[in-house]
Amino acid sequence: MSSATEPFDAVDVIRTKRDGHPLEDAQIDWVIDAYTRGAVAEEQMSALAMAVLLRGMTRPEVARWTGAMIASGERMDFSGLSRPTADKHSTGGVGDKVTLPLAPLVASFGVAVPQLSGRGLGHTGGTLDKLEAIPGWRAALSNSELMDQLEDVGAVICAAGAGLAPADKKLYALRDVTGTVESVPLIASSIMSKKIAEGTGALVLDVKVGSGAFMKDLGAARELARTMVDLGTDAGVRTVALLTDMAVPLGRTAGNALEVRESAEVLDGGGPADVVDLTVALAVEMLAAAGRDVPEPEVRAALADGRAKDVWRRMITAQGGDPDAPLPRARERLDVVADRSGVVTRLDAYAVGVAAWRLGAGRSRRDEPVQAGAGVELHAKPGDEVRAGEPVLTLHTDTPERFDRARAALDGAWAVGDRAPEGAGALVLDRIG
Amino acid sequence: MSSATEPFDAVDVIRTKRDGHPLEDAQIDWVIDAYTRGAVAEEQMSALAMAVLLRGMTRPEVARWTGAMIASGERMDFSGLSRPTADKHSTGGVGDKVTLPLAPLVASFGVAVPQLSGRGLGHTGGTLDKLEAIPGWRAALSNSELMDQLEDVGAVICAAGAGLAPADKKLYALRDVTGTVESVPLIASSIMSKKIAEGTGALVLDVKVGSGAFMKDLGAARELARTMVDLGTDAGVRTVALLTDMAVPLGRTAGNALEVRESAEVLDGGGPADVVDLTVALAVEMLAAAGRDVPEPEVRAALADGRAKDVWRRMITAQGGDPDAPLPRARERLDVVADRSGVVTRLDAYAVGVAAWRLGAGRSRRDEPVQAGAGVELHAKPGDEVRAGEPVLTLHTDTPERFDRARAALDGAWAVGDRAPEGAGALVLDRIG
Repeated sequence: MSSATEPFDAVDVIRTKRDGHPLEDAQIDWVIDAYTRGAVAEEQMSALAMAVLLRGMTRPEVARWTGAMIASGERMDFSGLSRPTADKHSTGGVGDKVTLPLAPLVASFGVAVPQLSGRGLGHTGGTLDKLEAIPGWRAALSNSELMDQLEDVGAVICAAGAGLAPADKKLYALRDVTGTVESVPLIASSIMSKKIAEGTGALVLDVKVGSGAFMKDLGAARELARTMVDLGTDAGVRTVALLTDMAVPLGRTAGNALEVRESAEVLDGGGPADVVDLTVALAVEMLAAAGRDVPEPEVRAALADGRAKDVWRRMITAQGGDPDAPLPRARERLDVVADRSGVVTRLDAYAVGVAAWRLGAGRSRRDEPVQAGAGVELHAKPGDEVRAGEPVLTLHTDTPERFDRARAALDGAWAVGDRAPEGAGALVLDRIG
Repeated sequence: MSSATEPFDAVDVIRTKRDGHPLEDAQIDWVIDAYTRGAVAEEQMSALAMAVLLRGMTRPEVARWTGAMIASGERMDFSGLSRPTADKHSTGGVGDKVTLPLAPLVASFGVAVPQLSGRGLGHTGGTLDKLEAIPGWRAALSNSELMDQLEDVGAVICAAGAGLAPADKKLYALRDVTGTVESVPLIASSIMSKKIAEGTGALVLDVKVGSGAFMKDLGAARELARTMVDLGTDAGVRTVALLTDMAVPLGRTAGNALEVRESAEVLDGGGPADVVDLTVALAVEMLAAAGRDVPEPEVRAALADGRAKDVWRRMITAQGGDPDAPLPRARERLDVVADRSGVVTRLDAYAVGVAAWRLGAGRSRRDEPVQAGAGVELHAKPGDEVRAGEPVLTLHTDTPERFDRARAALDGAWAVGDRAPEGAGALVLDRIG
């Protein structure tokens, strides 16, 4: 029975989805609003989220759900800027530091990048955690600081304000503790409600596929990408998705300061080829979505000739950071060595992510601090030769009692054989848009 | 990641069931214990309950889940009594006042009936609410009062103590607000954990089928009955189930004092045939399960000759009630009349239950008071003739502003036609045991 003041009863809404029926628009609008107000209890939304995960949602339901989450808070507006805007969102992977070189790279071509980011949870790192390894850098900006920096520098990576899609913030925290994360409708609406509310004009989605990603197989990743591209397009945001490989960690580092160091190498025109290639591919897409068709070699040139690095230095400085300060290093290191000579045949991204997390680079609870210096350094990746007794990985932590559990995570996660693995595979698996 | 002090992580347990795998014994033991302690949060148990509802549980899982709920509290022991014990549990129907004549009837043959009951919620009435219509009667007994009354009178209907299966009490309240009531494993384990913990030697289950019951179809009711009979038998309780019809209300009243009055008629050797027949059928089963094979005519005779009524009077008196006091009547009445002459062809149990509830006989929240006099009186049931302008139903309430919503519930729920409905159907549909 519904109460006197609410037009719907939460139990009726839950039952509708539980029994496999689509929710009506008015039910969706109400349940998101009432949840944000506290009139739908956490345990009721939790049951509904599980029913959504197991029963699914139709496309119109996902669109309405996303719209209701946007309507739960404020929307930003960048239309007053002198430049077009483009943003990137990655669904999260191991060693994915691409945002760090990408934002200044795109900005160096006159497209503003308002990158509102989050912190890491579980085995994937968070962009803000990485940048906080830089002495002095601060993640929190006011809206006017954000606008000024976008106009002056062209690139901002900062914490998303509490006013954007508050329903999503509440629901995301709930899903995390109730086993209801892995649902395409819930993931898509969570990401897109924040990105649409943020007000970017163009959006490139990097949907990760493989052991180190939330989406383990290509079919599910494609469905997620298609759902998000449709949601963005319908909301007037020019949206494109790349499906990219996350079976192996990206680059040669996983961990906060370690990844900042590797990003700086990319901005100096060096760095691992996979990080550079993905950064360039995403930059080309972001520029095109913002109306600037820049050929790939020209984008690459901006990494090689220091233009992107220049924006990076201004971006870090504007947020209080010292781009020249030495980065923190972990107090303890442990090498994991090859027991035979040969070629690395396998290196599992998920295992490396869990190891970095256990070393202190990530958190298990939202309010836990992270270690800036902790993480995993990869000396060899699949296809690389190693010699018996030489290090394949180095583990970094301030708290050496964590080494055992990190090593356990890596047990069986890599192998050395006689021949290089066949078909190392493309980095970009598909493009949807 | 599991915390340092708990052997399992709630999210892992939820995911196991969500993904369609059976839970391990140790996971079940832990999750029920941790939920009772508060270490598993309400929103986590809610997601797990929805996953159980949609994914199901194997027989061994249900047995373990039931055992874990029993282990969450104390167990009673009636083995010290001089008489064998038998209890009855109904899954709940409209107008189901059978417990009231049944307990004294069975006790009149020397089998003790420890009937630990609950209150009503939603459209089905609660036995304690009905008896509380009797002036002075109290539902709460201490364990020693319960034992003394079982020994002296042979029949007790009282509130189940808070110490029996506390995990079930918490979970039942949660399921009620999260749309996770209608699950065979969860219903079966909830009922049987309380009944096994209660310590009865024999148990007869009255599993209701039809619009007025939780189980709307025979297949689901049979599955529930089979699950419960197996759980009871495995726990050493001689358990039998009757599947009985609940498409039409039982007897001619739904509401607290109205049902007590009808029960007294049955105990005086009169009353509606369906109430009498079901009472006798359940009594024969309870006596047999307790080791006393009494032929049906002899059981019927104990209603006709006042033996059962005598136990009833002693049972009510022992709990402070006055069996001779006039019962409360509602302040307002409204007749619902036939608009044509003919034969009643249909009378929907669920609609009558909802009408009685809306008139004040039931509650929407656990702590709401009920009206003793409120309810629905049925002057004609399917197969009975009615004349245009004569009352088919009378609505009773202290608060006449409730009449409109009660009438709305009855809209289209009954019909008068030219011919009696075919195959009025047996009251007892099946027996499992």
